[in-house]
Formats: sequence, C-alpha cells, structure tokens
Amino acid sequence: MQKLYIIKVGGNIIDNPEALTSFLKDFASLKENKILVHGGGKVATEISKGLGIEAQMVDGRRITDAETLKIVTMVYGGLINKNIVAKLQSNECNAIGLTGADANIMLSSKRPLKNGIDYGFVGDVKKVHPQPLIHLLSQGITPVVAPLTHDGNGTMLNTNADTVASELAVALCGAFAVNLVYCFELKGVLRDFEDKDSVISTINPDTYEELKSTGVINKGMIPKLDNSFNAINAGVSSVIICQAESLVELINENKTVGTKLVAN
Amino acid sequence: MQKLYIIKVGGNIIDNPEALTSFLKDFASLKENKILVHGGGKVATEISKGLGIEAQMVDGRRITDAETLKIVTMVYGGLINKNIVAKLQSNECNAIGLTGADANIMLSSKRPLKNGIDYGFVGDVKKVHPQPLIHLLSQGITPVVAPLTHDGNGTMLNTNADTVASELAVALCGAFAVNLVYCFELKGVLRDFEDKDSVISTINPDTYEELKSTGVINKGMIPKLDNSFNAINAGVSSVIICQAESLVELINENKTVGTKLVAN
Repeated sequence: MQKLYIIKVGGNIIDNPEALTSFLKDFASLKENKILVHGGGKVATEISKGLGIEAQMVDGRRITDAETLKIVTMVYGGLINKNIVAKLQSNECNAIGLTGADANIMLSSKRPLKNGIDYGFVGDVKKVHPQPLIHLLSQGITPVVAPLTHDGNGTMLNTNADTVASELAVALCGAFAVNLVYCFELKGVLRDFEDKDSVISTINPDTYEELKSTGVINKGMIPKLDNSFNAINAGVSSVIICQAESLVELINENKTVGTKLVAN
Repeated sequence: MQKLYIIKVGGNIIDNPEALTSFLKDFASLKENKILVHGGGKVATEISKGLGIEAQMVDGRRITDAETLKIVTMVYGGLINKNIVAKLQSNECNAIGLTGADANIMLSSKRPLKNGIDYGFVGDVKKVHPQPLIHLLSQGITPVVAPLTHDGNGTMLNTNADTVASELAVALCGAFAVNLVYCFELKGVLRDFEDKDSVISTINPDTYEELKSTGVINKGMIPKLDNSFNAINAGVSSVIICQAESLVELINENKTVGTKLVAN
C-alpha cells in the first residue's frame, strides 16, 4: 500500500508570510503522496474588524453567525486557499484547492445546541467521500483543503481544521497507509513544559494512560491526543505531532522528529 | 465525440439571489457534460467599500491593485464560487470549484502596460491545461470556474470571465464537441435594439460582416462576437448568446434559443 501524508498546518504558520513561504517550499518538496489541510489564522478576524463585524465568542469559541460564515468562506476558501495553491504551483507542486463542498468530499451537519449554546454555522463531519481525492492523487495532484464543509442543503459550514484532517485520514485508510501530521509550535509533546527539548518520542495507548495519570499530559492536549488515538484505532498508521520545520527530515530523510502516536 | 457545454454567467445573475437559485437549479438539471464559468458581480465592490478600498477605474475598467486582488481572490474564488458549489451539490450536481491556479488549469501573464495604463494584477491567458478538467468530467464531476488565473510565480491574477470561458472552450475542443454559451440579459443579439424580441437566430462569418457593415451590430457587441468567432475558428462547435432562463430549452429540449454563431 502506498503511503499518504495528511499534514495539518495552523494559524501560526498561515499568519506569518515568511514562515508560510518556507513551509510551502518544504511541503512541495515532500516525495510522498500528500494532502495539506490548513487552518484559518488571524486574517479572518482582521477582515471582520475592517467590515465592522464583531467576533462573537462563547467560552473562548468563536460563534459563526451568518456574516462570519461569509467571511470564513471568503478568507479560508478563497484568499488563504488560493494563495497557498498559487505558491505551491510556483514550487512545482500541482496543487488543487478544495473545501468539503467541492466534489462533495466532506458533508457535515450544523452543530446542534450544546448546553444552550448555539455555535451557529459550524459543521460536525457526517460523511467523507474519499474517491475524488484518490483520483486526484493518482494523477499527481495534491489536494489543499480549507476548514469548510457543506450541509448538502446548499450551506457552507465552518469546520475545525484538526477534525477535517483526522476525518480525511480515517476515510483514506482503505486506499493508503495514512500518516497524519499535526504541525505544532513546539517540537512535540513535552515531558516537561519548561524544557522545550523534552519531547516524548513515542506514545501508545498504554503509555498515554500513564502520562495522563501522572499529569504529564494535561488538559489542553487531551482532546487533540484523544482524537489522534481515535484515528489510529480507525486504521491510521501513525499520528505525528511536530514542528512545521521538521517535515523534510520526517518525510524525505526518514528521521525521528516530534512525538509519534502509534497503536500498542 | 461527446458534447460539452461551457456556460458563462455574469453579474446580473450572481447579484440576484433568486435569479441565481433558479439558474443553479436549471444548470444542475442539464443532461450533457458541462462547465460553469462565473463572473464577479457587485459583491466585490461592496466588500471593498466596506473595507474602505476605493475601486480605481481607468477608461471604465477596474484597476486591480494589490488590495483589490485580495478582495477578488476572496470574493470570486471563495464566497461566490463556494456558495455556487454548495448550491449545486444541494441540487444533486456534483460540482467542484476551481480557479486557474487549481490543478494549474489556466496560466496567465500579468498584462503589460497598455497606452501607459497599468491594469495591475490582471492576467492575460497564456496556457490552458485541459487534462484535469477532462478527468473530472469523466468522473461525473462538474467544474465551476472563477475568473481568476495564476502567473506560475505564486501570484493570482484577475481575469475576464468571458475570456476564461472562451479559452477553456478552445482548449477542450480536442476532447469534446464544445458549445460555448454566454448567458446574457437580452434574448440574444437583436436586429433592432428597441425590439427586444428581434433576435437574430444565426450568424456566420459572412452574415457577421454584413451585420457590422449595416451597423446592426454595433460597438459594444463587436469584441464579444469577434472573440466568439475566434473560438469557432479554433474548433468550438458553436457559440450561443441567450438568456440564462433559456438553458433548459436549449440543452435538454434541443430548442432554438438566442443567437447561435456558427462557421460558414
């Protein structure tokens, strides 16, 4: 089975033009089949502000009202996605920019009220159709996926980029040996948060329980790692959490970087 | 050879939510292979105004400066394109939204100074790669193309939607019997502008010369028709200029609508 890397890159890279240029050059050079999933970044917030639309936050989460949905559709699906595609093309990576609506690759349903909170136009992934992605990859075309899905009734929905990446990873397991890579500010999951070099190189479900019980892995990381182990249980070969700068070492040079989550 | 319809729809439909919904329902129902090319509309101007960016016009043409390029990339490539795709999906048309950068389908070069006027980030089409579109069509996927191309060096470029449509038509002639349809406010090319029903049903290069010499076809229509005959000379089967409301009659019911341009 051929390898496929699904690489998720977040706002810390998207928001920094130099870091983004350098990342896209590295990404273009990766020799395996690959899919890029990008997050949003601050551009959406800046453009919202420019248009006088206040970001509504509840419990630290952005509420996607109708105006915000327009903004994220423009910024994530248009500005960020197309600029990434154009830059990858200039690095001789034949990229294609997609949202979940395109070729119906990712269908979601509008999140129901949770504890009385209406998150607005936010989509929880319901169904992934991997076939168009498999076809594109077989033609040497690299999908670049924005964190947007659709509800099948004509409405786009804002969707968490980590979730888009892990749902794609699980759906593509049947066709590829899928490695999911979360690019991260830190070098990996740290044993001691004060020591930025104390990267835990491998975690399996058993050691994960131990690291949680001793408090080494704390609140913020738990949902991300729970999701990652769910992906592994569903057939994803590995999940790697590392810095964007380490991708070439990881994939082209086969080096050990970051934290690798694997099955027992 | 299979038929392919390339249908260009402009701002008059894009700007009117009811007309757009009705158009997309009709478009989804068309039984032949099809590609939709959409224009921009007023949304870009409204959002520019909201952000305090003044549209720069020279001789009635919009100048695409760096800020305007951001806006059109967002609005054409994101907001308009993805909402069209989501609506087509809800009408059971498996659409995929693309710009010229996606899968490198349309490469252009930044327009050089013309008569001392710098049009800014405007692209003149240099090369079309039809293969990814042929692959998508063969899988039953319908491309929806925004009026944006890229320069191969990482920059998106604003590109006239009529030109995008005719360049695609010419490039796809080798694989399909291509019919190019320009949706238009009027019922077709009129013999008498005061009589909105005086549609000229067919024009060939000979009758075109006659209609120009007698002044029936005047200034505004000449570039559009010149382009159309260029496409026909390059192998496009026909160019039809008609109202968006006539598409179902034209394609599914094989009726004569609008003005059909054909070879001699």
